[in-house]
Amino acid sequence: MISLRSFVEQPNQESRKKRILENVYPDLLRIEQELKKQVFGPVPLVNTVSRYIIDSGGKRLRPLLMILSAKLCGYKGDRDARLSVAFEFLHVATLLHDDVIDGAEVRRNRAAANTLWGNQAVVLVGDFLYSKALMLAIEYDDMRIMKALAEAANLMSEGEILQLLNLGRADLEESEYFEVIRRKTAALMSAACRVGAILGGASEEEIENMASYGYHLGIAFQLVDDLLDYIGTAEELGKPIGRDFAERKATLPLIYAFNRSGEEERTWISQLFKDGDKGDPNTFNDVRKWVERTGGLAYTEEIARRHVSNATEALSVFPSGRWKNVLLDIAEYTVSRRF
Amino acid sequence: MISLRSFVEQPNQESRKKRILENVYPDLLRIEQELKKQVFGPVPLVNTVSRYIIDSGGKRLRPLLMILSAKLCGYKGDRDARLSVAFEFLHVATLLHDDVIDGAEVRRNRAAANTLWGNQAVVLVGDFLYSKALMLAIEYDDMRIMKALAEAANLMSEGEILQLLNLGRADLEESEYFEVIRRKTAALMSAACRVGAILGGASEEEIENMASYGYHLGIAFQLVDDLLDYIGTAEELGKPIGRDFAERKATLPLIYAFNRSGEEERTWISQLFKDGDKGDPNTFNDVRKWVERTGGLAYTEEIARRHVSNATEALSVFPSGRWKNVLLDIAEYTVSRRF
Repeated sequence: MISLRSFVEQPNQESRKKRILENVYPDLLRIEQELKKQVFGPVPLVNTVSRYIIDSGGKRLRPLLMILSAKLCGYKGDRDARLSVAFEFLHVATLLHDDVIDGAEVRRNRAAANTLWGNQAVVLVGDFLYSKALMLAIEYDDMRIMKALAEAANLMSEGEILQLLNLGRADLEESEYFEVIRRKTAALMSAACRVGAILGGASEEEIENMASYGYHLGIAFQLVDDLLDYIGTAEELGKPIGRDFAERKATLPLIYAFNRSGEEERTWISQLFKDGDKGDPNTFNDVRKWVERTGGLAYTEEIARRHVSNATEALSVFPSGRWKNVLLDIAEYTVSRRF
Repeated sequence: MISLRSFVEQPNQESRKKRILENVYPDLLRIEQELKKQVFGPVPLVNTVSRYIIDSGGKRLRPLLMILSAKLCGYKGDRDARLSVAFEFLHVATLLHDDVIDGAEVRRNRAAANTLWGNQAVVLVGDFLYSKALMLAIEYDDMRIMKALAEAANLMSEGEILQLLNLGRADLEESEYFEVIRRKTAALMSAACRVGAILGGASEEEIENMASYGYHLGIAFQLVDDLLDYIGTAEELGKPIGRDFAERKATLPLIYAFNRSGEEERTWISQLFKDGDKGDPNTFNDVRKWVERTGGLAYTEEIARRHVSNATEALSVFPSGRWKNVLLDIAEYTVSRRF
């Protein structure tokens, strides 16, 4: 029924995933070790909440991007893993504050942190991880690294605020949507790649190209996330689908469909956004069919593909080799994943 | 009825306050101008919430401490005000996250931010101001400044978490209480003074002494805050008294009284802490009388005075002069203020 190019016509997906994992497995282990080492301190609650959310099994994409970027830029040392977890901490801090925000009850197949410990603890542990990220970065004694982290944090908070303000608006402009995802997702991935390049002693041009790779990868990543919320399955994603719609959050598939629909359908969607989620799966199924029919899904995938091309293009200044291939594989995989 | 040394036997308080204000008035104006300049951006909600909480009229003590510390260490430039607002931003971010935390309904005579905009916006605007503080600090291109800010933020989040964990415990140790206030209050004031000294080009020894002044001032400041919650009036404080008790937060006056009471009174207080606040003013009045009778109020004031002495002592390495006098006046005033 739903037939998007990447999701049905990519027989190479499994082998690509396997190839990525084979190459990055040692680094993923180093990231996990460093995360475990960092998340302990004098306050048991902090350890418990941090461990809970960190153990919830993210992909560690941001730390991994930092490490791979450093390697691509020639980094040979062993201080990359320690710095890389700063990006996971910033990411997790955002997830924690996001849990307060949207009253999320399930995240990655486990109860959201705030339903277990309350908003208070969750906000504070988020703050703690945020400051911990900065403390880690300070050890590297490079103001460019501090700046990259602070700017990313600044943009992320702006993105989250804009997203909050946009809630309930079905008539969002595409540009307004991109303003949000640029900040809330792309900024941190871009910073991770930038910092990796800085650690690797890259030139100004290389640094900007790595940052550009991370930026476009981040946009593509979020577009696919938003797409999967329409076409994935709860089992694959580890969270229910249709959540964005239920939260009255307009993402690109819906925005595209809305802008290409007549008065009748616009009124229908606007009313659904106004009334809020009634939890009727049939309603979401109707919405999903409408989004597909109008081309919102295919369009979103197309734009994601374009950003993957841009990410790939940004790497052209680097010579071929193992780490470049891994980063190219990650870009390809991002837009074709099912979870 | 309640007769503490400083609060009745200090006829010089008004003239001291006047003297401080005369000396720092131009700097307070510069801080306000800089705050107004900094709190605007592309997102109206951020501006509104930030302005609301910043306009709520704090004392600007932290930015002022930074500026005065810089001046005492010989700073002659005009970049101090800009950096100083980073400390107000960090402070305000904590207040905002604190509003989520304790469900506070009134702060500084105005409704708490979360009752006006909801937890979501309040958490995010706090994050925004936090990152804004870092962005400002980065302009000064000094890793010692970044470190001071990050460490303060880290300690503050630990302090808030410890405080949350201690809620409802009437049998708190004094040392546990000090673990909290060292982090949640003294750390930021100490960082403000440290950064001022760094900006002023001070020696290592001078920097540590300024940081020590800020630390002891911060402890004294919090002790007096906690004291005023027992002996102040709502009109003077701009917030209801007895709030700590109502929130089942044991502060030094109560901890001291509890440790010096017999089984009967301990059971009475423990039960009140267990039941939570029933909003009965007579109950709090009884508690207040008990705390006074057992010497909890006088003891708290005594400890605050000792920290003021330590703060004063830390300044002994600096030559006499206008700015040293102002800092000494602030220390004296802190422990004698009624609001």
